[in-house]
Amino acid sequence: MKNFEFYNPVKVCFGKGEIAKLTGLVPLEANILLTYGGGSIKKNGVYEQVMEALKEFNVIEFSGIEANPHYETLMNGVALIKAQHIDFLLAVGGGSVLDGTKFMAAAALWEGSDPWDILSKRGKVRVDKALPLGTVLTLPATGSEMNGTSVVTRWETKDKLAFDSVHVFPRFSILDPEVVFSLPRIQVVNGIVDAFIHVMEQYLTYPANAPVQDRFAESLLTTLMEEGPRVLADRTDYDAAANFMWAATMALNGLIGVGVPQDWATHMIGHELTALHGIDHGQTLCIILPGIMQIKRKNKEEKLLQFGQRVLKITEGTTNQKIDAIIEKTIDFFESFGIKTKLADYGVGSEIIPQVIERFTKRGIKAIGERGDLTLEDIAKILDLQLK
Amino acid sequence: MKNFEFYNPVKVCFGKGEIAKLTGLVPLEANILLTYGGGSIKKNGVYEQVMEALKEFNVIEFSGIEANPHYETLMNGVALIKAQHIDFLLAVGGGSVLDGTKFMAAAALWEGSDPWDILSKRGKVRVDKALPLGTVLTLPATGSEMNGTSVVTRWETKDKLAFDSVHVFPRFSILDPEVVFSLPRIQVVNGIVDAFIHVMEQYLTYPANAPVQDRFAESLLTTLMEEGPRVLADRTDYDAAANFMWAATMALNGLIGVGVPQDWATHMIGHELTALHGIDHGQTLCIILPGIMQIKRKNKEEKLLQFGQRVLKITEGTTNQKIDAIIEKTIDFFESFGIKTKLADYGVGSEIIPQVIERFTKRGIKAIGERGDLTLEDIAKILDLQLK
Repeated sequence: MKNFEFYNPVKVCFGKGEIAKLTGLVPLEANILLTYGGGSIKKNGVYEQVMEALKEFNVIEFSGIEANPHYETLMNGVALIKAQHIDFLLAVGGGSVLDGTKFMAAAALWEGSDPWDILSKRGKVRVDKALPLGTVLTLPATGSEMNGTSVVTRWETKDKLAFDSVHVFPRFSILDPEVVFSLPRIQVVNGIVDAFIHVMEQYLTYPANAPVQDRFAESLLTTLMEEGPRVLADRTDYDAAANFMWAATMALNGLIGVGVPQDWATHMIGHELTALHGIDHGQTLCIILPGIMQIKRKNKEEKLLQFGQRVLKITEGTTNQKIDAIIEKTIDFFESFGIKTKLADYGVGSEIIPQVIERFTKRGIKAIGERGDLTLEDIAKILDLQLK
Repeated sequence: MKNFEFYNPVKVCFGKGEIAKLTGLVPLEANILLTYGGGSIKKNGVYEQVMEALKEFNVIEFSGIEANPHYETLMNGVALIKAQHIDFLLAVGGGSVLDGTKFMAAAALWEGSDPWDILSKRGKVRVDKALPLGTVLTLPATGSEMNGTSVVTRWETKDKLAFDSVHVFPRFSILDPEVVFSLPRIQVVNGIVDAFIHVMEQYLTYPANAPVQDRFAESLLTTLMEEGPRVLADRTDYDAAANFMWAATMALNGLIGVGVPQDWATHMIGHELTALHGIDHGQTLCIILPGIMQIKRKNKEEKLLQFGQRVLKITEGTTNQKIDAIIEKTIDFFESFGIKTKLADYGVGSEIIPQVIERFTKRGIKAIGERGDLTLEDIAKILDLQLK
């Protein structure tokens, strides 16, 4: 096991009816900016519950945060924060609203010349303060409710970039599984696969003699594979919704990734497909992961076999046969939800290959993956394999 | 799944050499009280590392915190804190030193008439402030390094009582697995079983449709059963020590117990055996748990079978045969470390039964357990079963 630090100060309030606790969670006397997306919270009753809990508070609204939240939109929010002397942000929505709000929290107090640097110069500049924020999660998927990470897209240049800071951990996050009841099917599906692949990216690397982390990851993978179909079969199944929601939060709160190698290649390549062709984030992951499993089957052999044995119960055959079966069963899992796993299914052809390679090259990236040996050539091979 | 809140703001620094980070973790300008036990930290090099990291700081020492830390000892520490205007506590030791330091942190700022109320009136009085504290863990076992709980014994009356407060969460805990290398065998053994039973008390209840929590618990039980013997076989096996240490921390940081029923009967009855007869905490647990499994075999049937199947791989036979095998294998696990599981092995006879019952009665406790139906009569039966 490698040395690590773990710190996660988010207070989670989990369960039906928990939104009412907002009254005691938001600081008294705060000027609150309530941030949300396209208005689905006005249809599912969440907006009403939030406003009821905050009826004695001073609340200003900022809506219209889109999927893959746009830097341009968020900077309008930052202007509003400054004009209205906002001192607390309450994000009500899915990962995009939460991520966008985290960026606004940091950008509002940014003293550098250009807030875009927070994203484009990640690792070189440092976010050393942010407005405090809380969240009410309406879509289990990204784990943003319990981490200090945010992903933002600059529409103008199609750059989809991330930053993280301890200062943008939510002070609290309210997770009421009943929000799942009214979600469109595709959003549930995207959430299941997003969480599943978050786990895979912290697990499907090489053995690091870290059995707690491995088994926690396998616990989440098994739970998502079992509970995902239950959620879709009966959207009013509270326990299935709750288990899906908690698994998605645990998938990316830092816990399963401590002290072990990680491989974020699926997300990195997937982000380019979203930025260039607008393919849903969850769908991009289902396209890329099987390609990585195939191209890096030797590199990831031990963990592939462990995943096969412990999660998929694949124990028969030669190593190659087992890995073939593991990749096939993973694809079957995605396709069982109706997600297509080839680029052609989304009307994208081989032109994507030079486009993606060029964008990695432009950012100075030569190789990614847990060993830093997934090269641009490998990325081209993965995309080629997943064409059709 | 039941509604729950989860909040754990402890920053964990895990790995070899991490003690050097103290320099950046302890507040500058603080008057630090360094608390420890009987001096083993002076033999294993930990004291030296701590003092090296703090050589520019103002450090006062308070040593002599004993196993099952005594209220009487701790109140001497509180007097020292007040006299020396201490504003940060650094606990260096195992669970007893950490628990004792948490109590001192709360008692030093207690405004009520009697600090004993913090323990004796748990649930009726409220700790609303405490001095900040950090820890350097030297014995994986209790999980105190990542929770806000403390257990203290009043020597005079032999009361062993607990309190918890968000104000006594350590600001940071440093976990260097190399501390395990020089521990006496019996302390390692006690640590393994203490952690194992912490997990059991949040797991061996009744099904609550909470597969993430169940599987996380099973992950820890399996890891402790595998890594425990490895630690004992080769005390210089860094990875085994690290996995044991991380599993023990995860066993009682609140995570596996969210939203599920819990049964702290083993600890509650065990505490009485320690208070009355000075039996090691870990040993008391190994005496009591098999008795509870036996007396409550019907009540806990589903989770016993799940534990048997998923952790012990017991799948053959009738329900009764399986449960017999599960209890036997659990006892074997304890005895494989040389721990005796009958009261007679510790020179304790049937006089213990009325003694324990009287102490529960005096505190107004009529029944315990996850369903509140483990009665005083059941406790008597459990003790009787475990006599010899």
